[in-house]
Amino acid sequence: MFMHNKKLQYTVRVSEPNPVLASLLLEQFGGPDGELAAAMQYFSQGLGEDDPGRKDMLLDIATEELSHLEVIGSIVAMLNKNVKARLSEAAMSEAELYLSLTAGGNSHTQSILYGGGPAFTNSSGVPWTSAYVDSRGEPTADLRSNIAAESRAKIVYERLIAITDDPGIKEALGFLMTREIAHQKSFEKALYAIADNFPVGKLPGIERFSNMYVNTSQGDGDMSGPWNSGDQWERQDPQSDSLPLDGGDGTATIGMAEDDVAIYESMAARTMSDPTADPITGADLGAGPGAGKTSDADMGGAADILDASNMADAMTVRR
Amino acid sequence: MFMHNKKLQYTVRVSEPNPVLASLLLEQFGGPDGELAAAMQYFSQGLGEDDPGRKDMLLDIATEELSHLEVIGSIVAMLNKNVKARLSEAAMSEAELYLSLTAGGNSHTQSILYGGGPAFTNSSGVPWTSAYVDSRGEPTADLRSNIAAESRAKIVYERLIAITDDPGIKEALGFLMTREIAHQKSFEKALYAIADNFPVGKLPGIERFSNMYVNTSQGDGDMSGPWNSGDQWERQDPQSDSLPLDGGDGTATIGMAEDDVAIYESMAARTMSDPTADPITGADLGAGPGAGKTSDADMGGAADILDASNMADAMTVRR
Amino acid sequence: MFMHNKKLQYTVRVSEPNPVLASLLLEQFGGPDGELAAAMQYFSQGLGEDDPGRKDMLLDIATEELSHLEVIGSIVAMLNKNVKARLSEAAMSEAELYLSLTAGGNSHTQSILYGGGPAFTNSSGVPWTSAYVDSRGEPTADLRSNIAAESRAKIVYERLIAITDDPGIKEALGFLMTREIAHQKSFEKALYAIADNFPVGKLPGIERFSNMYVNTSQGDGDMSGPWNSGDQWERQDPQSDSLPLDGGDGTATIGMAEDDVAIYESMAARTMSDPTADPITGADLGAGPGAGKTSDADMGGAADILDASNMADAMTVRR
Amino acid sequence: MFMHNKKLQYTVRVSEPNPVLASLLLEQFGGPDGELAAAMQYFSQGLGEDDPGRKDMLLDIATEELSHLEVIGSIVAMLNKNVKARLSEAAMSEAELYLSLTAGGNSHTQSILYGGGPAFTNSSGVPWTSAYVDSRGEPTADLRSNIAAESRAKIVYERLIAITDDPGIKEALGFLMTREIAHQKSFEKALYAIADNFPVGKLPGIERFSNMYVNTSQGDGDMSGPWNSGDQWERQDPQSDSLPLDGGDGTATIGMAEDDVAIYESMAARTMSDPTADPITGADLGAGPGAGKTSDADMGGAADILDASNMADAMTVRR
Amino acid sequence: MFMHNKKLQYTVRVSEPNPVLASLLLEQFGGPDGELAAAMQYFSQGLGEDDPGRKDMLLDIATEELSHLEVIGSIVAMLNKNVKARLSEAAMSEAELYLSLTAGGNSHTQSILYGGGPAFTNSSGVPWTSAYVDSRGEPTADLRSNIAAESRAKIVYERLIAITDDPGIKEALGFLMTREIAHQKSFEKALYAIADNFPVGKLPGIERFSNMYVNTSQGDGDMSGPWNSGDQWERQDPQSDSLPLDGGDGTATIGMAEDDVAIYESMAARTMSDPTADPITGADLGAGPGAGKTSDADMGGAADILDASNMADAMTVRR
Amino acid sequence: MFMHNKKLQYTVRVSEPNPVLASLLLEQFGGPDGELAAAMQYFSQGLGEDDPGRKDMLLDIATEELSHLEVIGSIVAMLNKNVKARLSEAAMSEAELYLSLTAGGNSHTQSILYGGGPAFTNSSGVPWTSAYVDSRGEPTADLRSNIAAESRAKIVYERLIAITDDPGIKEALGFLMTREIAHQKSFEKALYAIADNFPVGKLPGIERFSNMYVNTSQGDGDMSGPWNSGDQWERQDPQSDSLPLDGGDGTATIGMAEDDVAIYESMAARTMSDPTADPITGADLGAGPGAGKTSDADMGGAADILDASNMADAMTVRR
Repeated sequence: MFMHNKKLQYTVRVSEPNPVLASLLLEQFGGPDGELAAAMQYFSQGLGEDDPGRKDMLLDIATEELSHLEVIGSIVAMLNKNVKARLSEAAMSEAELYLSLTAGGNSHTQSILYGGGPAFTNSSGVPWTSAYVDSRGEPTADLRSNIAAESRAKIVYERLIAITDDPGIKEALGFLMTREIAHQKSFEKALYAIADNFPVGKLPGIERFSNMYVNTSQGDGDMSGPWNSGDQWERQDPQSDSLPLDGGDGTATIGMAEDDVAIYESMAARTMSDPTADPITGADLGAGPGAGKTSDADMGGAADILDASNMADAMTVRR
Repeated sequence: MFMHNKKLQYTVRVSEPNPVLASLLLEQFGGPDGELAAAMQYFSQGLGEDDPGRKDMLLDIATEELSHLEVIGSIVAMLNKNVKARLSEAAMSEAELYLSLTAGGNSHTQSILYGGGPAFTNSSGVPWTSAYVDSRGEPTADLRSNIAAESRAKIVYERLIAITDDPGIKEALGFLMTREIAHQKSFEKALYAIADNFPVGKLPGIERFSNMYVNTSQGDGDMSGPWNSGDQWERQDPQSDSLPLDGGDGTATIGMAEDDVAIYESMAARTMSDPTADPITGADLGAGPGAGKTSDADMGGAADILDASNMADAMTVRR
Repeated sequence: MFMHNKKLQYTVRVSEPNPVLASLLLEQFGGPDGELAAAMQYFSQGLGEDDPGRKDMLLDIATEELSHLEVIGSIVAMLNKNVKARLSEAAMSEAELYLSLTAGGNSHTQSILYGGGPAFTNSSGVPWTSAYVDSRGEPTADLRSNIAAESRAKIVYERLIAITDDPGIKEALGFLMTREIAHQKSFEKALYAIADNFPVGKLPGIERFSNMYVNTSQGDGDMSGPWNSGDQWERQDPQSDSLPLDGGDGTATIGMAEDDVAIYESMAARTMSDPTADPITGADLGAGPGAGKTSDADMGGAADILDASNMADAMTVRR
Repeated sequence: MFMHNKKLQYTVRVSEPNPVLASLLLEQFGGPDGELAAAMQYFSQGLGEDDPGRKDMLLDIATEELSHLEVIGSIVAMLNKNVKARLSEAAMSEAELYLSLTAGGNSHTQSILYGGGPAFTNSSGVPWTSAYVDSRGEPTADLRSNIAAESRAKIVYERLIAITDDPGIKEALGFLMTREIAHQKSFEKALYAIADNFPVGKLPGIERFSNMYVNTSQGDGDMSGPWNSGDQWERQDPQSDSLPLDGGDGTATIGMAEDDVAIYESMAARTMSDPTADPITGADLGAGPGAGKTSDADMGGAADILDASNMADAMTVRR
Repeated sequence: MFMHNKKLQYTVRVSEPNPVLASLLLEQFGGPDGELAAAMQYFSQGLGEDDPGRKDMLLDIATEELSHLEVIGSIVAMLNKNVKARLSEAAMSEAELYLSLTAGGNSHTQSILYGGGPAFTNSSGVPWTSAYVDSRGEPTADLRSNIAAESRAKIVYERLIAITDDPGIKEALGFLMTREIAHQKSFEKALYAIADNFPVGKLPGIERFSNMYVNTSQGDGDMSGPWNSGDQWERQDPQSDSLPLDGGDGTATIGMAEDDVAIYESMAARTMSDPTADPITGADLGAGPGAGKTSDADMGGAADILDASNMADAMTVRR
Repeated sequence: MFMHNKKLQYTVRVSEPNPVLASLLLEQFGGPDGELAAAMQYFSQGLGEDDPGRKDMLLDIATEELSHLEVIGSIVAMLNKNVKARLSEAAMSEAELYLSLTAGGNSHTQSILYGGGPAFTNSSGVPWTSAYVDSRGEPTADLRSNIAAESRAKIVYERLIAITDDPGIKEALGFLMTREIAHQKSFEKALYAIADNFPVGKLPGIERFSNMYVNTSQGDGDMSGPWNSGDQWERQDPQSDSLPLDGGDGTATIGMAEDDVAIYESMAARTMSDPTADPITGADLGAGPGAGKTSDADMGGAADILDASNMADAMTVRR
């Protein structure tokens, strides 16, 4: 069961209102790497967890992330305090209020729709979705997802710190950022305390495919590194005649009952695009006098016109 | 620039149609851990990458994931071949077609809406969203996201393998699963080839908060492990009087201009919920003769009734 | 700051595993009226709240809803315990596992993607979105949204109780349902303790439009009731000649600079659909020998054929 | 069946184009409290309604909301008229057009993607979703949802009125705002004309839990009010030893067949995080010379550095 | 199988960084008409296609669209290069970085969340969703969807060209725009090479309804054109007494078992809104001294006040 | 302004309840090709339209689609009538109700969440989103989108007709399907009545790129047809040495100020993945005794095991 203490985990001292900054900070309230995403990821894993140690850790950290959600949300609420009151009381002229709401970021929506409270959106106003939550019920995968989530949250906090010069906000963001580092360390310990954590799951891979590096992107810029070279890698440069990897014919096939084959062939015949046709098309009809193809006369040297140097003139050409 | 060879990277041999299985396999076509999500994550990172080695690797693997998208999509298309033809040609009675479309999974939508082609949804028909893509433009975070993504994809393939007894599908899924293992290994190498990859980014954490473990979930079930105990951890059991962590008062405050304070106070006064009131409410109005509170007579011992043993009877009580 | 006690607010005793029921119960975990939606709605309102009484109440109830999220999530996790273990250990044949995952509801996705843990989706697997959260920063609106949210949550619990015969689950659901009733009562009290709570906000309406009932849906079935009749209502039956309500001409107009008018007219002329044309269209091209219109011969009495009695035959007509 | 009269319900007179204002007004076209959401909520309820009086009312109001959608959409279209024409005809230099599209709000997307027509998005460009629609097929819940929806729509209109100084727009918004008041009154009448409308549904609550107020948020700031005090409330201050509420042990349990227990234990053993381990982790590997923990030397007094006063300097420390 | 060549299909030469423009160009990277949507639409159709000619074409064009995705994504990455580096290295003061991130468009989110890499969002930051993909497994519908998709992509490119004066970007956008024209032509040819492509599918329509034009929007502004007039159209002006079109009574009915009818009637009676009631409502309670209706005194001539000329004064009236 | 007549446009006669069929029919109520999507697409285009003829047509058809939404929604409501009443009154045992809700499709969510009313979801329960609406403010693109939308709606109705044997439903669906044919014809006429409708917009393409067909998918299966062969096409088979199309070097470049270059290079150096490193990785740590590579001993001949014939055995191998 959850309990709440009215003190924040970290004191919030905001110097002055700034609704645009508030809308940027929403990234860590309702964004993909924000505190709600973190809390819900660890909470849902904790509920399903079968190992008592990990369950304890997941609920510890989930609960702390909720407290961080409270800290960041309180900063956002503070930064919006005056625009909220001004709009609520219609305390300024329409023109002044309009300007105060269109100063940047997505603060316009935060004021008009959300009334200055912290909203579960990212900094572009995109609603939070549980599509952000990576819980798969397999600890060796879930802990890696948590490690990655903490590292993403850390860098977003770092960026927000870099654009904020309010000392109280900077200090609180610094605290929140640091806690992500600590959480990552806990998740790492829990992962590596699983005896056999790679590859994840129970089923081993097929050996000859697990050591193969397929160089699918070729040309000037091909590089070597420990990720594709060295003893543990067999590098393959696919060519048409080395395909597919399994030695088959590289097609997709299916067995079907004879009746179904007949139905299938009937469908295919009915809907065939005749390769020998030369049909007049809707585009031909619509292309004007030169229907069916673009003639030189029509285009007036459009290729030249679209050269960047004289693109602007091109805009008045076609009609 | 991308090129396409008409051979699949791995030959697909499906024994017989099975649209329900097709709808389950969509998890790896249009689901959160599926091949599209993987391909787009690495591709978007590759386009923004500034390190030539990682850029090459990211485009190699992104391209291979597109080839895997083709393999899994081809299996889905094969499994749906006969239901597609039957429905398209209305080759069976309505009742037979209806039954064939409601046999389980989400195959009904796959047939009616998507016509048997592979759809970019997960196994519940949820449309793919780029909210699944974790690209943050910071390699030490992105590579961890990629490691996590590969580990999730691996376990989902393992589960699909466990429920499939078609040998050709099992073999292709085994290939795809193994490649996720190989990709994880490449991403790990690239991450650890960055000299100073933890914590991510450039800004160090605040030391006293980076070694602290906050035991927020307390009670019977508290556990110790390397994630919260040992030399590197300072464990904190928060109590009301140890809050907040910064030694402040744990409140959120803001500086506001005098004029704004006046507006704010006017708003607060206007919208106060009077704590001394005892208002009649809408619920009171609606609660019938016993308005305002639930009397014993009304409830007929509802607590007892809601005991599971006689819940069904309770359902006819209130009116 | 949040704290967590390892005891649940209500003991959960599940008789036996049932992953299909688990997938139905997700409605109250990650559905629109579920506990996460409730918790986050009240929490975000509480953070932005300026009235100390309401702020206290909102955080009390938000915190309790998190505890309810834990209860319902624990039930879901319990119901999935055996399918999770069986799939994880591949402890049954593929055919048996396949059958156990396609028994109904959306349990297939819950097992394959989420590994049996509680997922933040509704009972159709739709990811939770903060679009469910109604927080507007205006207490007279927000409290009404909370009252409505509690009433929706209550009825969904009632429906789940009606389909569950596991006594332990029924009892826990009965507890959760009842708490929604209590929460609604609190929100009602807080709303009616605001002196002047209708209409919401500060701006009064225009009197002649606030007492008008517009009977836009007309015909057999028109009804009278206190919602459209009686002293406080002026009923209007709109007719073409009584439009618009303001006495103007019912058009939309705008002032534009002369230059812009010229540009606008040029655009309109360029893109006009000529009402005097009789063009051949793409559909005409595609309609076969009778291009341009559907002749009797073509259709073979299709209207008759589409009579339900012989629709099936119609399916083979066109080609 | 719906019919459409070419006159608007209220005449729209816009003084001059303003695409930024247009993008703000979209909140009531395609936002969560906008006219489409209202129309579809009442329409879907009306179609499923079994009470003739409510059905008539719901279709009346749904139809009027569609007319309001037309009014607000017409205003948006008017406000965008010149930017649409200018962009369509490329009537200005690129630099001028670029500036006119990046003047604030989300007008850039409205012009580039939607071509100046009214789009079903909110003021941040978020696509409308039926997740906004609260229809549950239970009139005592649905009417409360409608009352709440009208109150939210009213306050959003009030805010838009407060930032608009175009007299014609202000007048039309005032009309639309007032109609929300009238609609709320109708829904209130219909709700209270149901004899026994609280609690919703048929099943009564469990008495001892319906009168209990749980004070989960504790500390300086605890308040009393009619929502948690007085005769009808029994207040509970949860402590660890008073949990759970049911007198059980507060755990979650399930009955499982012996075979499944064995499988489950095998899974748990295989995936245990060993609490006695002290593993080297990936973070240890990545943390540089001081791998495994953050030494004082590494951090260079980071806590001090992150004090807001000298945070900027800190940014160059780590490498 | 896909392969990748490190050369772009078209050389990208960007003059100078411009993160705001980058955020606008995302429309064609992750927007509804962008290159990912096009590539995935044709790719999914190609995988399910049964006609070898169309399958070849669909995979040709899908692959080229992926190459276009690479071109537009590379432009975006280039435009963000300096803001990415400055933010990553915290190379400027907080105030300067803040200003550089709030200069317009949605560049703030692109920097803070996505770190300057190309994100799969539109120009408002809305995540890409496969709801944009129109693949139905019926070639005569799918090809029309492709034609429409190409035409939408073309116009969005045209608009982006109109606001860009960087010659290298303009040239690349001109190339991409032109390719959409070429693709549309291919899809048109493939559509009209199907012998009988209108109406789509196999089932003919009912003749008398396929030639009927229903004039549901009536009044000043009714127009004639080839879309509703001429030999092939029978125009119907619906009036109440000509409804419904089938000659029935225009109601919806269902057969139900007697038992169910009894249950249904019991439900309807229990939940009836009594049309003869005159209940006090929640709004009445909340409306203050004049509860139940809005008196003249209360409103202070609000209708006049809401006249645009003196709206601002009205804002202080109610309390 | 919209008006509503209580008669449906087409009489609905449903034989008997069938909630599973109801959930399938939702595809045309709240699915991507359903009536709401159609109505809103044409309505938003109509509001923004500048050509009086098209504006009239768009509002005519939008209004009719709303009437179709009413017809399909009424069918859904009828099909759910008895399950709604049974669940609402708890008129059956829990086990019977449970079974009636898990009979297939997504009827479980339709009953539990939506209470049997028609919901704005598709047949998988996915909420409707305006991402389905294709309105771009350019008539030659919008009309093509409408033509495509009508063709998709037609085929979905055809599929629903093929699985329904209730004569009244079949008849109503036949009517609705036919109206889509008629609407497509109107949109075609309006498109081809625009003098110069291809390519869309005002800007011509670059001639040499508008006639080029790029054969990016190569191999066994390359086909010729009017879409890539004949006088109007110049076919290009891209090879590494013919890239890029513009004659440049195929790279992406940007001009940056010297200061920024220095910052950029500093960032790149700091975050480089050292290609000469051979780091131990997290995967190495986790892979057990054979850390760093997968040895033969570890894998036990996994490649063989993953042969489909003995895959099941493989599942118990690794631990």
